[in-house]
Formats: sequence, C-alpha cells, structure tokens
Amino acid sequence: MGGKKLTVVHGAGIITVDSEERIYVNGALAIEGDQIVAVGHSSSVLAEYSSRADEIIDFEGSWILPGLINTHVHTSQQLGRGIADDVDLLTWLHDRIWPYESNMSEQDSYISTLLCGIELIHSGVTCFAEAGGQHVSGMVKAVDELGIRACLTRSTMDSGVGLPALWASESTDTCMKIQEDLFTRFNASADDRIRIWFGLRQILNATDDLLLRTKEAAAKCNTGIHMHVAEIPFENEWVMESRGVEHGTVSYLNKIGLLDHNLLAAHSVWVDASEVEMMAQARVKVSHCPAAAMRMLGFAPVAEMLSAGICVSLGTDGAPSNNRMSLVDEMYLASLINKGRVVFERGTTDPTALPAETILKMATINGAKSVLQGQSIGSLEVGKKADLIVVNPDKWTMIPLHDPISSMVYCMRTENISSVMCNGNWIMRDQKILTVDEALVMANAKNAAMKLITRAGIQLPKRGNVIY
Amino acid sequence: MGGKKLTVVHGAGIITVDSEERIYVNGALAIEGDQIVAVGHSSSVLAEYSSRADEIIDFEGSWILPGLINTHVHTSQQLGRGIADDVDLLTWLHDRIWPYESNMSEQDSYISTLLCGIELIHSGVTCFAEAGGQHVSGMVKAVDELGIRACLTRSTMDSGVGLPALWASESTDTCMKIQEDLFTRFNASADDRIRIWFGLRQILNATDDLLLRTKEAAAKCNTGIHMHVAEIPFENEWVMESRGVEHGTVSYLNKIGLLDHNLLAAHSVWVDASEVEMMAQARVKVSHCPAAAMRMLGFAPVAEMLSAGICVSLGTDGAPSNNRMSLVDEMYLASLINKGRVVFERGTTDPTALPAETILKMATINGAKSVLQGQSIGSLEVGKKADLIVVNPDKWTMIPLHDPISSMVYCMRTENISSVMCNGNWIMRDQKILTVDEALVMANAKNAAMKLITRAGIQLPKRGNVIY
Repeated sequence: MGGKKLTVVHGAGIITVDSEERIYVNGALAIEGDQIVAVGHSSSVLAEYSSRADEIIDFEGSWILPGLINTHVHTSQQLGRGIADDVDLLTWLHDRIWPYESNMSEQDSYISTLLCGIELIHSGVTCFAEAGGQHVSGMVKAVDELGIRACLTRSTMDSGVGLPALWASESTDTCMKIQEDLFTRFNASADDRIRIWFGLRQILNATDDLLLRTKEAAAKCNTGIHMHVAEIPFENEWVMESRGVEHGTVSYLNKIGLLDHNLLAAHSVWVDASEVEMMAQARVKVSHCPAAAMRMLGFAPVAEMLSAGICVSLGTDGAPSNNRMSLVDEMYLASLINKGRVVFERGTTDPTALPAETILKMATINGAKSVLQGQSIGSLEVGKKADLIVVNPDKWTMIPLHDPISSMVYCMRTENISSVMCNGNWIMRDQKILTVDEALVMANAKNAAMKLITRAGIQLPKRGNVIY
Repeated sequence: MGGKKLTVVHGAGIITVDSEERIYVNGALAIEGDQIVAVGHSSSVLAEYSSRADEIIDFEGSWILPGLINTHVHTSQQLGRGIADDVDLLTWLHDRIWPYESNMSEQDSYISTLLCGIELIHSGVTCFAEAGGQHVSGMVKAVDELGIRACLTRSTMDSGVGLPALWASESTDTCMKIQEDLFTRFNASADDRIRIWFGLRQILNATDDLLLRTKEAAAKCNTGIHMHVAEIPFENEWVMESRGVEHGTVSYLNKIGLLDHNLLAAHSVWVDASEVEMMAQARVKVSHCPAAAMRMLGFAPVAEMLSAGICVSLGTDGAPSNNRMSLVDEMYLASLINKGRVVFERGTTDPTALPAETILKMATINGAKSVLQGQSIGSLEVGKKADLIVVNPDKWTMIPLHDPISSMVYCMRTENISSVMCNGNWIMRDQKILTVDEALVMANAKNAAMKLITRAGIQLPKRGNVIY
C-alpha cells in the first residue's frame, strides 16, 4: 500500500452529509493517507480493515461529522478583536480597521492567522476562505503549520475614497501582478491544502479594469474570486449612480459578466428578487455571515436564495465584526435570525425556516462547493479527503439528545468538539491542538497586537471608571 | 466575628457594576459569611483583611464580575431540549410542550431543574427567575442542593382553549390556594436563597378573577408576579376583541391595574410606544430573551424601553425555545439583534445600539432589580451578598483583550467561566460544580427524559436517513 497510514475510527454516530443524508448510528470510517476509503457500519468496516490498520480508535458515545467550512473570515483581523465594538460604520472603517490593516507587517499577518486558526480548529473548522487580508505569504506560513485547509486571498483595491496613503497608490497593474505572483508561488502548496484565490475587496474599491482583469485571471488560473457584495444600501446607490444600472452591485456584476460559478459573494444582503435569480442562474456562491449581518449590515434573503437553488454557506467574517469566530455559533445564529427575519413582513417568525439539516449542509457540503472543492471535501464519503470532527455530546450542553441533528446544530458549543482531523492528520485531539504551540501563539499574539495598535495610533474610549 | 468564614480574593480585575461603574484593574474583595465586606485595590484590602482571613485566593490574570442573573427560564423544560425544533408554534405547543409538561412528575421537575441548574452555573448564573413550571416542590429541592438563588413560580392557568385534560380542570380558587401554600412552605427557604413568586402563564390562560387575585396576593406577600406578556400579535388581537382595549395585553393590564413594580413581564415583544410608556410609568420589569425572540416571537423594542427608563434584563427562556441555556450567549445575542433590528426601519443597522456596558448591566444589576433584589445582589458592593463569577480571559476565545468590557460581553464563552460563588459559597471551582454530582445528574436526566417523552407520546420525525 505504499506505506500510507491506515486509520480506523469506529463506534461513533456518523453524520455523513452525503447526497442520501446517511447517518450511521454505530458507524466507522477507514482512512488511508489523506483519503476516506470506507464509510459504513462499524462491524463491516472493522471486519475489512482492522487487520491491517495502523491505528484503531474507538469513539463510542461520540459523533463524527465532516469538518466545518468557514467561507468568509479575515484572518488578518484577529489581532484587532475588540478594537471596533459599538462604533458606527465609518468610525469602524476609517479610525479602526484601515489604520490597523495598513500597519500590519508580514509577521503580524502570520501571527494573526495562527491565532485565528487556533480558534477555527477549536470550533471544528478544517477549511476556510480568507475574505481578503494583508500579507498572504504570512498567512501561507501559518496555514501550512496549522495543518488546516484554506483558500487565501489578498485584499485588493485599486481605487476608492479615503484610503490610507499606503494603499491609495496601488495601480490595477500592481494589484494583478501581486496576485498572479502569489498564485504561482503558493497555489497547491502545503500538500495541496492551500489554494490562492483572487480578491476584490468591494466594488467601491475596484475600477472596471480591475473587475474584468480579475475575472480573466481567475478563469486562466482555474481558481475562485472572493468579493464583498451588496453589503450596505449606500453601495447599491453608488453603483446605480456611477455605473448606471437599475438596482445595485449584483445587477452591475451581472451586466459585465462577473457573476459566475467561481465567484464567492460575501454577505449579499441588499439584493432584490431579480438579483437573487441572476445569482442562481450564474451559480454564484454566497457566504452568509449571520453575526456580522445583524451587527453591521442587515439580513440577507437566505431562505429565498436557498429556494432559488443558490449554494449558500456560512462565515464568521473577521473578529472586529463579530468578536466570536466560531462557526458553531454561526450555525445557531443562522437558525435564529433566518427564522426571525420574516417577522417584519408577516407579523410572525417562521420557526420552520432553515431547519437544522439545511444549516448543517450550509456549514459543510455547501461550504465545500463554495470553495470549489465540492468533489473532495464537505461530506464523509469514500474517495474524499479525510476532513472530520469528533463531537462529544455527553456534556451538560447537549443533554438530553432527543434529536441528534438539531442538537449538533443548535446545542453544540465549542466545548463539545473534542478532536479534528484535516487531510488525514489529527490536528486536534482531546481539545489540544497538535500542530502549533497554543500558549506560545497566544503570548506572541498579545504582544504583537499591542504593538500594532500603538503603531497604528488607534485609541479606544475607556468604558467605565477604571481604577489603576 | 461569630465564626463566619472570611475569604479574600485578590489580584483580579474587578468589574463592580456599581452605580459609579468602578473597575479595579488590580482589585480584591473580602467576603464574610454570605456578604461582601470590602471592595477595592488588592493592596488595601489585603492590608486590612489578610491577617484574619480564613482563605486568601490569588486570581491574577482573571476578572471577577457579579454573578449573572437569568430572569426568564423554564427549568422544567430542560429535559425537553430538542423535542420541538423547527416546528410551527401550534405544533410546538399542542404536540410537544403541553404533552411534555402535563406528564411531568415531581421527580422529573427535580431532575430537570438540577440539569438546568448545572448549565446555568457553568454559564455564570447565580440567580434565576423561573418562568413558571411544574412541581415547584421539586424545583425547591434542586435549587437548595445546587446552592444557587431563585425566584420560583408555578405555571398557573385557570382557563384557555385546547389545554390537556390534566390542566383544564383547575379552578381559580385552586390556582390561588396552591400558590399561597407554596409561598408559606418555601419562601425564604434555603438560607433565603429561594423566593416564591406568583405566576400567570399568559393572558390567554387567565380569567380576570385570576389576574386580580394574583395582584392582590402578591402584594400581600410582598413578592413578584412572573407573566408572559405580549408574545405574539394573536395575543393582542384576542385581548382587543375579548376585553375591548385599544392595543393589546399591556394596555389591558394597565387598565386593570396589574402593571406595577413587581410585575416581571417576559418578552413584551408586541408593545407600541404608548404601552412602553405605560410600562415605564408603572416601573414594570421586562425580561428580554433574544434567542427565543428571534426564533419564536419577534423583536421587542428594547432600546426604546431602556430609553424610557424601563429596567430590562436578560433571559434564556426554556430549552425547547432556545436549545442553548447560556446567559453568556444571550449577552452576545442581545447585542447583535438589537443592533440589527432597526435595519428594517432605517435601511442600516445601528452598531452603537446597546453598547457592551448596557448589556452587562442588563445581565447583572437590571436582573437583580427585575427579581426585586436590587438592594442585595447584582453588583459587587459592600453590604451585598457575595454572588460572583471568576472569568479566565487568557484563552483563544478572548485574546487579545483590547476592550475588557466588550470582551466580557461579546467574546466570553462558557469556557472562560472558571469559578462561581453564590451567597458566599463556592458552587463551582475550575469548571467543576461542587454542590451536585454532575455525572449522576446527567445520567438520571437522560433516563428520565426518555421515559417522559415516551409517557407523553411525543414522536419526533426522523431527520436524515438513519442506518441502525
């Protein structure tokens, strides 16, 4: 067998999220190298594989799920958690986030991604899509060490009002050149766990030239484009005025041909019914970020998007937009806000909207499709990569367990996630991350964060009457 | 000193939530018996108390906050977590919750409250207001053992359509008699940690006679009334039709004089501006339950209530309305939904709404006022009861800590709550509950829950393709 390690995990409830929604009450997986080679009853998998297995692990009492996929996360912003709470959007952007991001060093991006990665892994995430950040080379180093899977994207802007001096000068040529170089250097690196995507921060910071050249370059590289789309009504108004379309960003992107199967559109809050249809037709992927939506943007028509056949997945957004960076919490939030959102139209909530099984798909297989890896991750099936999480439901958070699927989606907390495997390797066992030194990363992160905030000149108003 | 134990905790950040919002960066508390006798700088408290202290604990690196107060929780429903997910309101009530509750034994209520109490304590709660449940004697036994503080209320209904046979027969006299007996037997028991309140399930299940006699009895006993108020538009319509008032439940309760300082009105979602004013004038307390609101009811005008001077606190509601029973999560949710709620009126969210310091007050001092104990709990002040939590922020969930108050409210998870003291006694240390055997309670709860669901004839549809 060429020396690939063979692991059998058995005795667990296995929620495959395959196309037949199979759930094995007493199930097993056989994993050879980075691949799943068997899924089924414990007895049959053990009978076939135990004699030649290198490792056999009994997970009785646990549940095994596909690794969760976070399709919109600013890993560079992790060191800025708490720098922009309870402030309006302009203060958030101009006085906090832009000074923070434009003052980051490559080392800061590396440390920030490491810290964010620790939170992601503890929250059951095995793959993420970077929303666009600083110093992709720093992210690459961190992702390589963390053992996680990622689509990395540079924050890319060739225009816009009020940008920090450091950014304002970047030409369209420079934007493209840097990203094409990153693709050449890093795509498919770290055992193919890392993919390089093209980034468009948002339409307010993109010329038509940048939009069109990005589409062309991504197509040539056969990779994805990650873009913030239709975040606030002002954005749509600006697009209508400057680009002369009827509704907003989505209508314009449709007009110029940017809507396509490889566009991951984050948020997509302010879209009308015709734009939902445009996105569905073009097979655009949407990353729904419930916490950031409630706090900063508004409520996307997620149920309508799903009904239209759009692949909607889940994201946390960045720490200064959310504070908690837990996809486990986002599953719970996605249920709550999408059941509640219709109350303004109908006078009552719809507690049947986005049932648990739909949300579980959004966090797994839809996430995989959103990062253009639906063939290789997102469910537990033979031939797919071994990306999985082990959940221990036998805690006060999840007892009693009348309805396992809804319990995984609505009751589960990060406390319940005990182990995480990515690409066939255990990256967390018994809540201890095996790939990086958590204490060292946290110490470095505290230090780097303090220096960065000072360097960026960010001052936070004091809350309360602090006595030193 | 009469043998009362003297404990000094020091070296921690102390967020007092007192009227001057004092935060000691390196602070200490001295606790004698069940009372706080000193709050201040570590050096000064240690200088005065360490020589005669029985126990001195160094909490360097931790933060100490007042114990959180959950002002609306159905402890009887804990065994029913997961029995009513993703179903409409009528199915929820008629096919799941009523069969469940009406089939509970006293022992079930005892076990359910123990299980719920474990979750509350891990979530930093030292005091809760029971929303109205079954078998108060079972709750009393559980609360006594847990070492927590509670205002216990019987679910009380003397009318209504479609009630289970067991309940439909209860007369107004019986409703009053049972509650008065409970008050006599149990009020101020368990070292005064237990208070007995009067319950009104909701106006749809209360005759005018019950409403008025409840007000009278509660006044006579100098205790509170816990009632679900203005939960759904149908309730208001029904009140307008049957009682001939202009808007809804709040208008009617105002008309008959039930609005008063001792009414804890849960949810209060469907209230108009004049009703907000009525509640403010009467000093009614409101329990805002963000998760249940989003899932089942709609969004209360919380910012408007706070502006009007209403004391609004936070609740989890019951497990079948929420799944997670964590006031820590409710703080995060209260921020998100109340920032987002205005998007439908204004076209943008208001990220400045309900800032962290306001939410922290809602979860502490407003909770104390809501349960009519503002003089004795809810903040860390000399003369108050020693109800506190110790938070360890030095984990991946809360690093970096640029803004301590917002971090406690928006980033903190139950993982960060290490120790809990109630009434001067440690009830949890290092995430281990000291008062009850957690493993035994969980085992008993699983068993009791299964039997209860079977007895009640509750059947859940299967999700997915389950293979046994």
